[in-house]
Amino acid sequence: MKAAYISSGQFLIQDRPRPKIEPEEVLVKTCLVGICQTDIELFNGYYNFEGIPGHEFVGIVEQSPTNPELIGERIVADINCGCNQCSHCLQGDPRHCSQRTVIGICGHDGALAEYVKVPLKNIHIIPQTIPDQEAVFSEPLAAALEISQQIHISNSDRLAILGDGKLGLLIALGLKCYCPGLVLFGKHTDNLKIAQAQGIETRLLQSDNSEPYALEIDKNFNIVVEATGSTKGLNLALELTRAEGTIVCKTTSHHPTQLNFAPIVVKEISILGSRCGDLSLALSFLKNKWIDVRPLIDSIFPFYDCPEAFSHAQKPGTKKVLISMADKPA
Amino acid sequence: MKAAYISSGQFLIQDRPRPKIEPEEVLVKTCLVGICQTDIELFNGYYNFEGIPGHEFVGIVEQSPTNPELIGERIVADINCGCNQCSHCLQGDPRHCSQRTVIGICGHDGALAEYVKVPLKNIHIIPQTIPDQEAVFSEPLAAALEISQQIHISNSDRLAILGDGKLGLLIALGLKCYCPGLVLFGKHTDNLKIAQAQGIETRLLQSDNSEPYALEIDKNFNIVVEATGSTKGLNLALELTRAEGTIVCKTTSHHPTQLNFAPIVVKEISILGSRCGDLSLALSFLKNKWIDVRPLIDSIFPFYDCPEAFSHAQKPGTKKVLISMADKPA
Repeated sequence: MKAAYISSGQFLIQDRPRPKIEPEEVLVKTCLVGICQTDIELFNGYYNFEGIPGHEFVGIVEQSPTNPELIGERIVADINCGCNQCSHCLQGDPRHCSQRTVIGICGHDGALAEYVKVPLKNIHIIPQTIPDQEAVFSEPLAAALEISQQIHISNSDRLAILGDGKLGLLIALGLKCYCPGLVLFGKHTDNLKIAQAQGIETRLLQSDNSEPYALEIDKNFNIVVEATGSTKGLNLALELTRAEGTIVCKTTSHHPTQLNFAPIVVKEISILGSRCGDLSLALSFLKNKWIDVRPLIDSIFPFYDCPEAFSHAQKPGTKKVLISMADKPA
Repeated sequence: MKAAYISSGQFLIQDRPRPKIEPEEVLVKTCLVGICQTDIELFNGYYNFEGIPGHEFVGIVEQSPTNPELIGERIVADINCGCNQCSHCLQGDPRHCSQRTVIGICGHDGALAEYVKVPLKNIHIIPQTIPDQEAVFSEPLAAALEISQQIHISNSDRLAILGDGKLGLLIALGLKCYCPGLVLFGKHTDNLKIAQAQGIETRLLQSDNSEPYALEIDKNFNIVVEATGSTKGLNLALELTRAEGTIVCKTTSHHPTQLNFAPIVVKEISILGSRCGDLSLALSFLKNKWIDVRPLIDSIFPFYDCPEAFSHAQKPGTKKVLISMADKPA
């Protein structure tokens, strides 16, 4: 089968063997794949990843030995594949299984190929009313909404989102259902306009980050989500967070962060890491149209233009780049 | 009056004017003062502090214009002095008042002098059964117990304390009442023995910190308190904390911390700053003998040996150094 393949930091389009599935897995023919920041880091040779990338995807079940009634169903999938034996897995949450593989990220080939294999228990059937180009946002939207599953967010919170990139926008649009008065801080006027059009208050930051947003009234948030993708984001988050407030971290960088912890101790601030979320919650948001993800699509590349798609996607402020696995651009 | 005074990074013994009190303040004759890590940083010229240090103290009320019945009472005191007007102060918690002064640390002369002035509302009368040499631990013990007021700690938690210095020992001894099975990690055999004698499980770390504690079974704590006093402590804490666990930070250093945040995000770890606590809770612990602080006393210096006391206190692993404000050593 055709596949994108990363090996020794090289990104190649290759013929690869079609995955062989176990009884408790399904074989999925891929339709549409999204590129996120983690994919770009893999593309650029970080994390020593070797294999097929792609973890945001829509596909159709082609083989399902245990549950043949699933064949033909259009699905999205949880990307964490657990050991099924540890306490995390037995509680139904393989996201923190220490033996896990992660589809398209760690030890499990991803969806930038004609086919991808997925554990049966990871798949979610997509409601018919959600088109592919919206369903493909399920995985990153679940990650955005994960914040609401970790901490209580209410209308009385003063909530700031830092970063108007792909993930920051999804977080702002998703968390707006919990805290309509949230404020999105970003550097890209066009991206902020997408949020404004869906009723979100925004603030434009200086693009050189030399001067954090200056108004004193805006430095008193009790929840600040750091989704800038930059190791400098946390210092700005700290500027904006009031005593006893919470900073939620979404940025995963291969660079270390330099941070003075004294104000965190003195102000008794809480910093919370936040990663993958619940795809069924994301599908509910899409089905009920509580969020409109369509303006977040930057472009759709055909699979044979995959390297160009990645080059384009890594320009700062680029919205979601999708790759259609059909032979022709969608 | 005689006073220790820090000015332009110099530590001097001087004659200073006796504090003049307002109606809502009391004048306290100091008896016994403890030296903590913050005092050592002030002594070494950090934070641009100018004034009289000393924030862990026992004294006797000598003037109290509004409540004269307090005269002669033996007291300890909350060190945060709020504006009495902001939302924090109106909720009875001046610890996070943005206009606050802090006795002996910021904008308010401390207790290393014959007299110190204290807001009336900050004082706590010491129960008669608690001797001075135990009551002087009220402020740091309150800071240790603050952790139990911020997060729920139970017997089912796997709780690690990193650091067997003055504060780490107090934290281990205090939190043992909430989680008897906690484990204290430290580099000083003598200090670990103090904890062992009060029933605490301990682990000796390599003193060069080159090899974090190696047993896999010990890397699965759900709460880790970082009280090493070193910016490297947080990286060790991260090693020991399991997914979705909590790291409580007690170290305030003037040095920045270098930290890779990716594992914090991926493991969805929570980092919580923790500072001053509730002196009435600390006095309850001392009165009820739920903790024995006496083995934590390293030495008691007379006030005229103040500079020597500070020099001695800053040796790594030194237990609590006290300064007696009487003319002769206690």
